[in-house]
This record gives sequence, structure tokens and C-alpha cells, in this order.
Amino acid sequence: MRPPLEGLADLIVSFGANVQEGQIVDVGSALGKEDLTRAITASAYKRGAKFVDVHYWDPHLKRERVQHAAADVLEFVPPWYGERTLQLGDERGAAISLSGPIEPRLFDDLDQERLGRDVFPRVKEWTTVINARTVNWCVAPGPSAKWAELVFPDLEPEAALERLWEQVVHVCRLDVADPVAAWRERSRSLGSVADRLSQRHFDAIHFEGPGTDLTVGLLPTSEWSGGGDETADGIPHMANLPTEEVFTTPDPERVEGMVRATKPLYTQGRIIDGLTVRFEHGHAVQVEAESGVETLRAMIEQNEGGDRLGELALVDREGRIGPLETVFYDTLLDENAASHLALGSAYETAVGEADRGRLNRSTIHIDFMVGSPQVDVTGVTSDGERMPVLRDSTWQI
Amino acid sequence: MRPPLEGLADLIVSFGANVQEGQIVDVGSALGKEDLTRAITASAYKRGAKFVDVHYWDPHLKRERVQHAAADVLEFVPPWYGERTLQLGDERGAAISLSGPIEPRLFDDLDQERLGRDVFPRVKEWTTVINARTVNWCVAPGPSAKWAELVFPDLEPEAALERLWEQVVHVCRLDVADPVAAWRERSRSLGSVADRLSQRHFDAIHFEGPGTDLTVGLLPTSEWSGGGDETADGIPHMANLPTEEVFTTPDPERVEGMVRATKPLYTQGRIIDGLTVRFEHGHAVQVEAESGVETLRAMIEQNEGGDRLGELALVDREGRIGPLETVFYDTLLDENAASHLALGSAYETAVGEADRGRLNRSTIHIDFMVGSPQVDVTGVTSDGERMPVLRDSTWQI
Repeated sequence: MRPPLEGLADLIVSFGANVQEGQIVDVGSALGKEDLTRAITASAYKRGAKFVDVHYWDPHLKRERVQHAAADVLEFVPPWYGERTLQLGDERGAAISLSGPIEPRLFDDLDQERLGRDVFPRVKEWTTVINARTVNWCVAPGPSAKWAELVFPDLEPEAALERLWEQVVHVCRLDVADPVAAWRERSRSLGSVADRLSQRHFDAIHFEGPGTDLTVGLLPTSEWSGGGDETADGIPHMANLPTEEVFTTPDPERVEGMVRATKPLYTQGRIIDGLTVRFEHGHAVQVEAESGVETLRAMIEQNEGGDRLGELALVDREGRIGPLETVFYDTLLDENAASHLALGSAYETAVGEADRGRLNRSTIHIDFMVGSPQVDVTGVTSDGERMPVLRDSTWQI
Repeated sequence: MRPPLEGLADLIVSFGANVQEGQIVDVGSALGKEDLTRAITASAYKRGAKFVDVHYWDPHLKRERVQHAAADVLEFVPPWYGERTLQLGDERGAAISLSGPIEPRLFDDLDQERLGRDVFPRVKEWTTVINARTVNWCVAPGPSAKWAELVFPDLEPEAALERLWEQVVHVCRLDVADPVAAWRERSRSLGSVADRLSQRHFDAIHFEGPGTDLTVGLLPTSEWSGGGDETADGIPHMANLPTEEVFTTPDPERVEGMVRATKPLYTQGRIIDGLTVRFEHGHAVQVEAESGVETLRAMIEQNEGGDRLGELALVDREGRIGPLETVFYDTLLDENAASHLALGSAYETAVGEADRGRLNRSTIHIDFMVGSPQVDVTGVTSDGERMPVLRDSTWQI
């Protein structure tokens, strides 16, 4: 199989980010993803992009930094990274980011406290731009040989890469006659669930399942969204491709109880397995895991707002990712396989003006999966009424 | 042979760029040069760098741009590239750039007029920063497999890369017991030649040899330099490593005659062979070559000041590059093998305040080699006296 580079690139550029004529397009790529990056660049220029601004990330550079940099500069990022990001918003640019592990296990032997403090290439100004909705952006999977070996360790490297591509093609709905039409239909359905959830004005969401009994408060103006986004100027785009979630912004001060992750998560180049988190008054007061816990703890402790929730998202069984039962070690794909929460920064767009001052702010945003057919999701109204939302991963509303 | 990555990296960081504690270090690298880039990053952090800011250039992105971008955006570069460069100067940062062809012949089949207009990743603000002497910078060779295959096409790929590394080690004087001491000695000798040339106050330099009869006027305050540089704050650094030249800034309006290049040059991914240029009143009025001439013509025509000289440099036979008789297709190495001229931007630092307004300004800076043992170099004083400067590539002054 020749990977459908052009097909995926065109879907990302034309439908995902929905690049407009004359736009500057920021592309966050990584070593190992050159082929798709070049196809995206070609596609964007063909569509009339003014400049395609590609950055190849090399995780070895982070490894050298964490090993050798002075302790007091690990959090430093030159000011031009933030300024560039803000300017992209001012210029009404587009942005594409390719997801997927790059060098799995490269950071396993590092000092995890130091690793947790170096969050580059993430810069906090992205949160500002995303909340201002000035950029039409899309995060999409960028298959690579090393990612494939991590996901399918029992296959030969070539077969593993082929399998990864097959699954990426499937979850991106590139295997149907008209992928864009298929996405529009799925988007409408997710949008309609989000509308129904918003109309219920739940005061809290309750997760209950094996190892999990967690109540997440919502803000009075919390709105649910799903199935796509729109910039302030009215350019529709898919912030995530694929997307199978409906999400909202929780009350960072009202989270109580215990939650057990239902899938491993992959952050800062580390696999975090068997995660459990206990929340009190909105704070993550106890974080345990079978692997990688020091990295996660360091990220939570070293970044303001890292111990509070910034996102709550629900995923049903109609999505294409969950049924594959593949652990992708990639937040984009794994978070769209199951309901999830995120520690760190919140999406302003999901609350009204009145509550903007109350949502969580942070440099980090770490999604972790908490949903499964065994986890009941229940809405709780302000007068204590309980309404089933998901049972056996199927919508009840 | 294991390439001496650490040795070359340390020489570049500690002696070439002379990175200081607390500095931001910009590293301009390219795909295929990852190993040396990582060693440089490690070396810089060990030396106390605040942040090592690596950019990997992918020439395929230029190929896609030249092929598919709209005609009116080929010269466009987002403003943040220039701003970042100026800020590096304001912050008194360091800069390292790895030279050497990346994907030879990748641009051969492109529309050469369009190719000539897209000079990214070069940005004109570098000239500003270099002239302000606020950054301690170093261009050094970054060996790669594809570069090796171009230089040694008759060797097996592995042997070619080994040979390239051997020659790079030799010309960087890494094969002596104390490379830094060897460089200091060579620097002193070049500095002393430059001083003697400056004391002569030549009005012009005359090149005469096979196919060449060219007179290049100098400015009243033109000074000769060689063997190293110093920032405005007094940080010594080697702008080129290796360096074997003494150079000055010519009068862009007084260049007359014909010159034949003595080596091929490599610019914009193209090999330009058999170049001849005729100058009248300072302008390159006729540019011919056996290959790649359209690219060069387009660069000269599309960039203001591209048809006038910005640099004149002399190289003797004591250097380590010339005797190898290798054509590296790399300006850094080839220009230090033979006397050369450059079309485009001039170094302000080589003239006094009084002449700053007269030197050539341009976005481009294209060195081409015009020296050989067969080319006599003669200094001409303002009263017409002629003094031999180089005969058989040996200093006469």
C-alpha cells in the first residue's frame, strides 16, 4: 500500500483547517513525518496559501536540554515564539499540527522533575489565540514508522506502518466515497447531541464505573460543543480530525472524588499507564500510575493550574476509533475513543462572558481517558435531579 | 570511523561561535544533519546556553512553494522571521549555521525564474544584525550522506561519507593535538596579512589570469580583515570555520572587466559551472555559465543590488582546503579554497562611517571563486602604482 499522502493532506488542508486563499499556514510537524508535511505544504499552496511555515520538532533536542541545561532556564522560551503565535492570530492565519508519538521512550531515563518543567514546543500563547478564535486550526494524525512500531510491536516494521496508515485512513473516513460528506453528517450528529446537553443546563456530571466515582461541577454558563468549530470571522474548521467528542468547560473548583483512566496516555514522550487521580475541592490531590507518574506529577506541580480540570468531553460508541480497540498512544486518537478529562487550560469559548474569570488557566493541557462502556455518565441538575447521559457508551438524551 | 560529532560540535560552540553563559543560540540546520545538530545542542547547554533554538530546513518545502505558490507571494516571508533575527541581536544571542548541500539537484527541473525569487530561509535582517555585530556567529560544515554522494560520486555511500568527514576534520584542524591553538596561530597570520593590506590603502585590486581581467575598485575607507571577528561587546568569534581568507568591501560602482570562475558554485540548490561575468560601471552586465545560469540570473535580477559586488576576498596557498583539490559544492569550504567575490550585500564593518552610504545593499550574497595559482592579484594605488599581492597564490606583501 502506498500511503494516501495527498488524500490525507487535502482533507486536512481543505476541510480540517479549511485554509483560505492568502492565509499564512503554520504547520507543526516533527522528524519522521516529512512526507505528509510536504504533501500538506503542496496542498496548501495549491489552495492559495500565502506562506506555509513548517516547524520540524526533534525530541532529541528536548532530551539534550533536560540533560544539560542549567536548572533555572528549563522553563525559558525565547519571546519570539509567543509573539509569532499572537501574530498568526492578528494576521488571521491557519494552523495545522501533526499528532502521534515521535520517539517513544526517549525520555524514560531522564530526571522526570526536570522533564516536567520543559513543556516547549508548547507555548501558552496558543491558548490565547485558540480562545480568541482568530485562527482556523486542525490537529490531525501524522503516521510515522516509530509510531507504528509502538502501536503494533508484534508486526514487522513495514507491516506495522501499513496497519497504522490503514487505521488512520479508516478513522479519518478517507475510505468512503465522499469523506467530507461523511464528516459533515457526523458533525451534525455531534452538534445536535451538544445542543441537547446544553439545553439541560446540568450543574454537574457524574462518572461511575470500575475505580471511578467522580463528580465534575459545571459553570452556570457552560455550553457543550461538538462536530466542528468556527473562527470569529466565520471560517468553519475542524480543530480535531478525527473528532468524535462533545465537550464543555468545567468549574475548576468543584471536582470531587476518584477517577481511574481507561486507557494509557502519552505525554512529554512518556507512556502513563494505570493512572488514578483523586480530586478534592477541584484539586488533583493524589496522582498515581503504574508507569510515568513522576513525569505527570512534575508537569502538574510545575505549571500553575496544572492540578485543576480545564475540559470535560464525552464520546459515544458511534465513533470510528473506539471499536478498533487500538491504543494509539496519541491524545488526538485516544481521546476520541473514549470520554475524557483534561488537566490544565480551559476553552473560553465554551462558557459565557460571566464565567470567563472562573475557568482554569495553565500552560499545560493534558487529556486523559476516563470513559468506557462500563462507566456510566449521569447529568445532575442544580436541584439534584439525576439524568442518564451515557449508558454502555450510548446517548440517553 | 565514527564521525567526531562531539569534537566538531565543541569546536563550533566553544571556539567558532564562542557561546557565552546565558546566551540564546540560534542554530540553522537542515534535514540530514540531525546528529551534529544534537551534539551542538548538547555542547551549547553544557556551556551554559539559555536556549538552543534549532531550525531544520527542508528543501522539499521550497520545491513545493516554487511549484505551487501564487506568483505574487514567492518573495513573501512572514514578518516574525525578520523580527526574531533582530531580537536575537537585541538579546545579544549567538548563532550557528551548518553549511553543505542538502538535496543536490532537487531544484534542477523547476522554473528557474520563480526559484530565483524565493530566497527563504535567508532573510535580509541577518545583514542588519551582522553589520551591527551584536551576535557572535559561526558558519561551519555539517556533513551529510547526500552531500558526500555529491562530492565523491565514485565512492560507495558509506565510504563517501567517511571521506567527507575526514576532509572536514582536516580543514577544521581537528586532526591536530590542539585545534584551538592551531586556529589561533592561523588567525594571527591572516590578521597580519589583512593589516599589511590595509596599510597599503589600495584604490583597486586587479585580477588577471585565464579568462579573467577584472579591476575592482575599493572605497577610501575599505579595511581588510581576516582570521576572526569580534562583536560590538568584545566577544571574539569565528564567523566562518574554517576560514582562510582576508576580505574587504569594494566600491560597488567601480568594477570593470571580465572574470571567469575557477570553481563551480552551489546556490539555491543548483550547481553553477563555468561561470563568467562581465562588469561595466559596477554592474554585472553579462552572466554566462555552462549550467544553472538561469537560476543565478534570476537571483541577480529579482533582488535589488544583486548585480553589484559586496565582497572581495583573497586566499593564499597556506590554507588547508585548496590543496585537497576537492570541489565541495559548498560556499563555506570552496570560498576558503580560493580568492573570491560576492554579488549582493556588503559587510559594513569593513568600511569607515564615511563610506557606509556607498556600499552595496541586497537581500542576497552569492560568493563565487575567481582565484587560482594562475590568477595574479595586484594592488593598484590611487596614483596608478601597481604592487603584486598574490603570485602563484603566495603573498607578495
